[in-house]
Amino acid sequence: MLRSNAMATGQTNSAADVLIALAPGPGALRHRLEAALLEDIASGRLAPGTALPPSRTLADALGISRWVVTEAYGHLVGKGILDARTGSATRVAAPVPDGAAGSRADAGPGRPGRRAGGGPTAQGSRSPSGTLPTPGEGLLPGTRPPSGTSLEHAPDRATHDLAPGVPDLRHVPREAWLRAARDALAEATNQDLGAQPPAGHPAARAAVATHLRRARMVSGPDDAVVLTRGAADGMSRIAAALSDAGHTHLLVEDPSWAALRDVARAAGLTPVPVPVDDDGISTERLRTEAARTGARAVLLTPAHQFPLGAVLSDDRRAELLAWAREVDGLVIEDDYDADFRYDRRPVPALQGLDPDRVLLLGSTSKTLSPAFGIGWMVVPQRWRAAVLDVSVRRGPTPGPATLDQLTLARFVADGAYARHLRAARTRYARRRAALLAALDRELPGARVGGIAAGMHVTVDLAGTDLPGGESGGVGRPDVDAAAVVREGAARDVALVDLRRYQAAPSARSTVLVVGYGNLADARLEEALRSLRAAVDAATR
Amino acid sequence: MLRSNAMATGQTNSAADVLIALAPGPGALRHRLEAALLEDIASGRLAPGTALPPSRTLADALGISRWVVTEAYGHLVGKGILDARTGSATRVAAPVPDGAAGSRADAGPGRPGRRAGGGPTAQGSRSPSGTLPTPGEGLLPGTRPPSGTSLEHAPDRATHDLAPGVPDLRHVPREAWLRAARDALAEATNQDLGAQPPAGHPAARAAVATHLRRARMVSGPDDAVVLTRGAADGMSRIAAALSDAGHTHLLVEDPSWAALRDVARAAGLTPVPVPVDDDGISTERLRTEAARTGARAVLLTPAHQFPLGAVLSDDRRAELLAWAREVDGLVIEDDYDADFRYDRRPVPALQGLDPDRVLLLGSTSKTLSPAFGIGWMVVPQRWRAAVLDVSVRRGPTPGPATLDQLTLARFVADGAYARHLRAARTRYARRRAALLAALDRELPGARVGGIAAGMHVTVDLAGTDLPGGESGGVGRPDVDAAAVVREGAARDVALVDLRRYQAAPSARSTVLVVGYGNLADARLEEALRSLRAAVDAATR
Repeated sequence: MLRSNAMATGQTNSAADVLIALAPGPGALRHRLEAALLEDIASGRLAPGTALPPSRTLADALGISRWVVTEAYGHLVGKGILDARTGSATRVAAPVPDGAAGSRADAGPGRPGRRAGGGPTAQGSRSPSGTLPTPGEGLLPGTRPPSGTSLEHAPDRATHDLAPGVPDLRHVPREAWLRAARDALAEATNQDLGAQPPAGHPAARAAVATHLRRARMVSGPDDAVVLTRGAADGMSRIAAALSDAGHTHLLVEDPSWAALRDVARAAGLTPVPVPVDDDGISTERLRTEAARTGARAVLLTPAHQFPLGAVLSDDRRAELLAWAREVDGLVIEDDYDADFRYDRRPVPALQGLDPDRVLLLGSTSKTLSPAFGIGWMVVPQRWRAAVLDVSVRRGPTPGPATLDQLTLARFVADGAYARHLRAARTRYARRRAALLAALDRELPGARVGGIAAGMHVTVDLAGTDLPGGESGGVGRPDVDAAAVVREGAARDVALVDLRRYQAAPSARSTVLVVGYGNLADARLEEALRSLRAAVDAATR
Repeated sequence: MLRSNAMATGQTNSAADVLIALAPGPGALRHRLEAALLEDIASGRLAPGTALPPSRTLADALGISRWVVTEAYGHLVGKGILDARTGSATRVAAPVPDGAAGSRADAGPGRPGRRAGGGPTAQGSRSPSGTLPTPGEGLLPGTRPPSGTSLEHAPDRATHDLAPGVPDLRHVPREAWLRAARDALAEATNQDLGAQPPAGHPAARAAVATHLRRARMVSGPDDAVVLTRGAADGMSRIAAALSDAGHTHLLVEDPSWAALRDVARAAGLTPVPVPVDDDGISTERLRTEAARTGARAVLLTPAHQFPLGAVLSDDRRAELLAWAREVDGLVIEDDYDADFRYDRRPVPALQGLDPDRVLLLGSTSKTLSPAFGIGWMVVPQRWRAAVLDVSVRRGPTPGPATLDQLTLARFVADGAYARHLRAARTRYARRRAALLAALDRELPGARVGGIAAGMHVTVDLAGTDLPGGESGGVGRPDVDAAAVVREGAARDVALVDLRRYQAAPSARSTVLVVGYGNLADARLEEALRSLRAAVDAATR
């Protein structure tokens, strides 16, 4: 059976080698990939039942988009050549009995939930990973998703999800949200169900504004709030507005979340990395880089730097805002996980210090679930027209569905959102404590950072004792986080190397970014043992 | 009291004249507008209780964005200077009793529904009007929306909504949708609530594909379906993909829906108008214009040309597809109201004739309500990667919320969508019959077109008898539809001039586009009497 680590370690006689060899040929990549798979299957090198590598692994190995792989897989599943039984890897299909092919084609539209385990991979999430987190478990074996598209979500599960950026999917407030939806639907006027302003339904904007004033000390009128489909949507709009206004560069933290950088780049802004230390972004280096490039806008995570975890110090806050005023600039505050803060008192939003200079991005993707598709931006007065202009260019209804907006308004106004945040905070705090204890036990000597808030920590493996406590204080200075990630994948543990978030990835890193948002409490110990095994395997 | 027609007819001594005079001054337009209003209020020219013109009317008169007006109004409402009592025009506020100001500020986040009558205007809808339909009624007087943003939705109501593009907001299937949402939420796996592929949840794509195959004879695999937030969202994505692929022009029907043209233009495609006749778009002229401009893509409404109502003939369909194959082009089919067809047998989607050349755009905005924010595109295989690439550039989750996708999947799979379409079809057919009878009675001689399908008709007033049947067969050849629209606005009837949809509006038109989707059955007679009064006033 092919294992994902076979891809990375370059073992011979694996499907990975066969496919990699095809890369330089002509034709669309997907078709070449399909042809390669078909050839290998026809030749018998890939026998019926053989598991293919997860799409992410294969995509990484080939240096291509994961979509090419999932589309190729999906197409071959649609033809019955591959088999996408959920809860398991994609495999070369066994010969299909005559009757079975028809029943597969007739599987029909698929009940969302009964398709147990047919949950898609996290492809395309606004994950801090910038790529593709893979929360995974709870799969019922033996059920089969509808044909054709199944491969988009069948593989790439990890038993233990230690990737950052995914909230606790076991505790999505389904009932409370449904109640809010019911009330919103019952009470909405006919007009509420008609078309709405592009910035969002006024009642929903007012509700979000009220919440942000109370919970994040955000300042501004209700109409400063623009509803979005999430932080990346907001980033996409302000980046386009900046670009329209003549901006060519965007200062970003290094390391930082790749997805927002990518969105800014797609809108025409060149990201300019600025280093981060224990006080957050370096305002000194920010000034240097701004002067060098002419950049007058910066994207940062003041409350809990992603991924390193620093809080932007008071001095730096003042310096940053002074700079923004000097250059007539804009500060974009990604307030991605500030609701979850454990040890210290809450860190108010930077926005409250200067509503004219700070645009805040927020969403429910990290607090409720990405499935709600709703977020917000708080826009300084001077940028509102530009943001609106960009928004309507993409169609007259750029934001989330009105029904969802009204549901959110109810959910917030009834206190359900605050209750959920409190419960989640307690849950994450407890899990964090268990994680820190387990890390201390399994990886003694590892330096753990960024623990004050959020749903992830950094784990520097360099000082970790060798197995059996053999390090003698030397630790494992040569440990390679990338190798640990690969060994983790082989053990069904999703891990992320810090390098993923670096503007120019260093040759090697000893740091993992370990998320615990979607880690099952009951399996935390097991996950950490697997992590330790991966570390040991990578340094053996 | 200021009336909206005062704006258009240029009466002196009205707020309109005062405000128009201010246009060339310095400063941001909104601030100048606020200053002008404040000055007029301070001087007593605008006395307490005076009604201001609806924001659209004022914006049109000043040649500025309606947003500038609504923002200025909203700001002054926030200050208590204007009063936005719903169900009525925005007025200069009466002096506020001491206690009242506080209670207004404390109004809080506003319950979506109990804010009865606080429904926003249709600003930003994907209306065929390309601007702002104004469905309106059912307002409870005396309630007050939250301050600040209220002006975005308070004015601009019409008692009778004869604008096209708005479905029957009185019959949104609230209960059935909520049931589907409940089932979807109950059955979704944790994974379903995690991040999803940018093209949409596979189960929802499969459900939509099944529906389209059955209802629209669409051809293609499930993964040809990409879920969008509506037709304009889909148009925005394919337009950007076309632009990326080197397309510079897009052939469009003339007249046609402005919103989709605008979205295409914003994505970098220059719309190239092609005339329409009783067989739909002229394929002869299409070839000429394509050759002249190099355009290889066309956007059209084959099932029910918007707004003229023709069905694209079989010959034209064949010619169009032959052209598309010759030039390696793309046909974009806006299937906006094909579900509602009354007299003849259903017109299948053009897409089914050549799934490699036709991209279909559809949505629930015209079948359910714009509040659902969900639509789809069926993408030819060769365009899928490009559409996906454009999509993810705007953020990793470009489509509708996953919960809404799962709800739609349930709604479709359970047959609720088909039931709703059947009921709506019956309702619209009955209303259409009543409308045609009333038109015949109130405006005898008017030529009514496009009646076979959809939720609107065209009404050519040129042949209409003069009041009292005085025309003697001459009719009213000089009637100006724009004047009728203005007179309609003065009578609280929302009307639309055909010129709104023309690429280069003619100097004058005698044709109205009359929507009946959101026209209250019980008030249809009254609406048509008001329409006749407007026509009479405009030709007096």
